[in-house]
Amino acid sequence: MSDPQEGPWSRLDREVLVENPWHRYCRDRYRLPDGGDGTYFYVDMAGSCGVVPLFADGTVALLRVHRYLLGETLWEWPIGGMAPGEEPVEVARKELREEAGLTAATWDHLGTFAPYKGVSNERCHFFLARDLTEVGQELEDSEQISVHRMPLEEAIARLEEASLGDGQSLVGTLYLKRWLQAQEA
Amino acid sequence: MSDPQEGPWSRLDREVLVENPWHRYCRDRYRLPDGGDGTYFYVDMAGSCGVVPLFADGTVALLRVHRYLLGETLWEWPIGGMAPGEEPVEVARKELREEAGLTAATWDHLGTFAPYKGVSNERCHFFLARDLTEVGQELEDSEQISVHRMPLEEAIARLEEASLGDGQSLVGTLYLKRWLQAQEA
Repeated sequence: MSDPQEGPWSRLDREVLVENPWHRYCRDRYRLPDGGDGTYFYVDMAGSCGVVPLFADGTVALLRVHRYLLGETLWEWPIGGMAPGEEPVEVARKELREEAGLTAATWDHLGTFAPYKGVSNERCHFFLARDLTEVGQELEDSEQISVHRMPLEEAIARLEEASLGDGQSLVGTLYLKRWLQAQEA
Repeated sequence: MSDPQEGPWSRLDREVLVENPWHRYCRDRYRLPDGGDGTYFYVDMAGSCGVVPLFADGTVALLRVHRYLLGETLWEWPIGGMAPGEEPVEVARKELREEAGLTAATWDHLGTFAPYKGVSNERCHFFLARDLTEVGQELEDSEQISVHRMPLEEAIARLEEASLGDGQSLVGTLYLKRWLQAQEA
């Protein structure tokens, strides 16, 4: 994780309250510049990587993913978590193959953001993947993901017009639009 | 929270591991449709509300907020958490007054999304606030927030071109653009 001590708040100590295969749940005690102390509960995550898979014919591969916590099925770009020390583009490559069943020869970084800055130190790196080849999904037992190929404009409409959007995929979409506009300029 | 039992995964039991003034950290045991069991660690949050404050002259109020977990200061729209039973627009009204020092006479719902669908059940509701009046900030001791008034286009550039973007504010920006385009159509 980044070191919070660089900011105007200084960390006094940190305790890992729960460690599991996906993240660590921690409690920090911190000191404010005015001398006051406080307590911060948060999720410690190495990061995540998202991918927009864009085919040469202008179509994309968009996913339908059941989300247990929300009790809903969302439209999403392929996204997966990083382990400490992993390179973002390598994680993006793995997620694209496992979740969407695709490999890509051309990769561009679209942008990096904090999806949940108040409760998690995760940074999410988004990529555009092109020159795609279909190789077949490799899902884990607990993953329920279907792949849907459609024109980019249709995918954007499905992501933006959902009654409940997927925040990380929407940011990826925003970065993609900016990237495409920069190409046209 | 929404009931995960409506989805294809059924909850077997839930344990609240940590409860604090901001959220609950929980562990569910669940059963998959194929009969397999699993464990899910997550943050239980009532929700959050974000606001784009747009003045009649085309300027907006954008915030600089120090984020302890990331060790960085981010450009953000005003956003705050909901307590159970609160109405989204009332929370948006409170955050706009406290963080940006503004009240608004006109409110429009821009969209709702899940900012961190894999680890939190939070739903974030974004609003456009217009017909604004300046009344002064009311910050909590631990909040370090400055308000910056600038043209909307400059705010969008600052949000989108940051080396580390704020995911929730970027989704609010995407929804705002869609709303503005719909007004022009």
